[in-house]
Amino acid sequence: MHVVVNAAMSADGKLSSRQRDQIAISGEADFARVDRLRADSDAVVVGVGTVLADDPHLTVKDEQLCQQRLERGDPEQPARVVVDSKGRTPDDAAILDDAATTYVCLSEAAPIDRRMELADRAELVTAGDDRVALLRAFATLQEQGLEQVMVEGGGELIFSLFEAGLVDELRVFVGPKVIGGRDAPTLADGDGFIDEFPLLSLERVERLDDGVLLCWTVDS
Amino acid sequence: MHVVVNAAMSADGKLSSRQRDQIAISGEADFARVDRLRADSDAVVVGVGTVLADDPHLTVKDEQLCQQRLERGDPEQPARVVVDSKGRTPDDAAILDDAATTYVCLSEAAPIDRRMELADRAELVTAGDDRVALLRAFATLQEQGLEQVMVEGGGELIFSLFEAGLVDELRVFVGPKVIGGRDAPTLADGDGFIDEFPLLSLERVERLDDGVLLCWTVDS
Repeated sequence: MHVVVNAAMSADGKLSSRQRDQIAISGEADFARVDRLRADSDAVVVGVGTVLADDPHLTVKDEQLCQQRLERGDPEQPARVVVDSKGRTPDDAAILDDAATTYVCLSEAAPIDRRMELADRAELVTAGDDRVALLRAFATLQEQGLEQVMVEGGGELIFSLFEAGLVDELRVFVGPKVIGGRDAPTLADGDGFIDEFPLLSLERVERLDDGVLLCWTVDS
Repeated sequence: MHVVVNAAMSADGKLSSRQRDQIAISGEADFARVDRLRADSDAVVVGVGTVLADDPHLTVKDEQLCQQRLERGDPEQPARVVVDSKGRTPDDAAILDDAATTYVCLSEAAPIDRRMELADRAELVTAGDDRVALLRAFATLQEQGLEQVMVEGGGELIFSLFEAGLVDELRVFVGPKVIGGRDAPTLADGDGFIDEFPLLSLERVERLDDGVLLCWTVDS
């Protein structure tokens, strides 16, 4: 499995404001880049916080890219994955519609009624007691044929994936805005590292829209 | 007055770990760049949180740069400024030694005994009731001949300066590390903006050490 984390952050490292409002950080060129990256992926992954805050659809928008997927024998849309320890994904979440296969990764802490409701709308992957055991959950997804995986946030999931050593690449669009806020979501939240910080190598720097795209690989 | 904010942040926008430990983010090329920027400044400004966490000296290290300052009629070292609403700068702080002139910006909330002790070691600028009124304090600094001003952090002061509309340029070295942590200090903390985000223009992108330097100007 190859895991690419992709996100847009403000010049000060925020994904959104402290109110979790979605802020336009990038522009059309970056949207097109993200759409291509989705189209090149077997699955697009988010944490439940992102589902609750933004209700994203996570589908490829460009019809030509969907057509190319079909022509090479892939499903029209990449699978969608939500990491959702307690089963909080709402039944009417856009991510649960029938535009693509959806996997919900749960822990044993997810109530049984939520599991039954989600099982009607998605494939369930259960791993871990209180929180999703990411290594096991991702191994299960890989067994389902999801090899090329893209993660779109949020900061809690991104931190947990770095903590689990699951990230191969980090692509960050840095946009021309200051959001600020000690409580605003950042690219990597969670408890944070206090030593043994994941080390990166800068592979590519590209000016895009009114900001810059930084492509890092994670040193093994 | 022209205010340049300069900082080094991790790839995820953190200035240090949640324990406020100083983390090596940049390298020798960036240190040299920061030293030149200090040498080109009339004053180097930090918040008291940075003084308490890191006890920085904030002087120009390169003797040739000091010599050049003398040759053009400037003091050997730029002035140092600490923004310290309640007078918490310790008497033995490195910033209070006699290597350069130091200004301590206080609010009326600073206890009288602290003011008297600090007055022995620094020039005092008092503005604001509970917190330093930055516009007034910086106007006073300008009257003292400090025109070219560099701010080195931390995230609370940087946010307040953006909030006050005092920042002209933002130069950020983005380093090859993930620090993470929802409580780790970021480039711009404070309450954060929820609308009317300061907008930037990307003037320069330069690969440096193992990271990248992003030079933004603040749109007026």
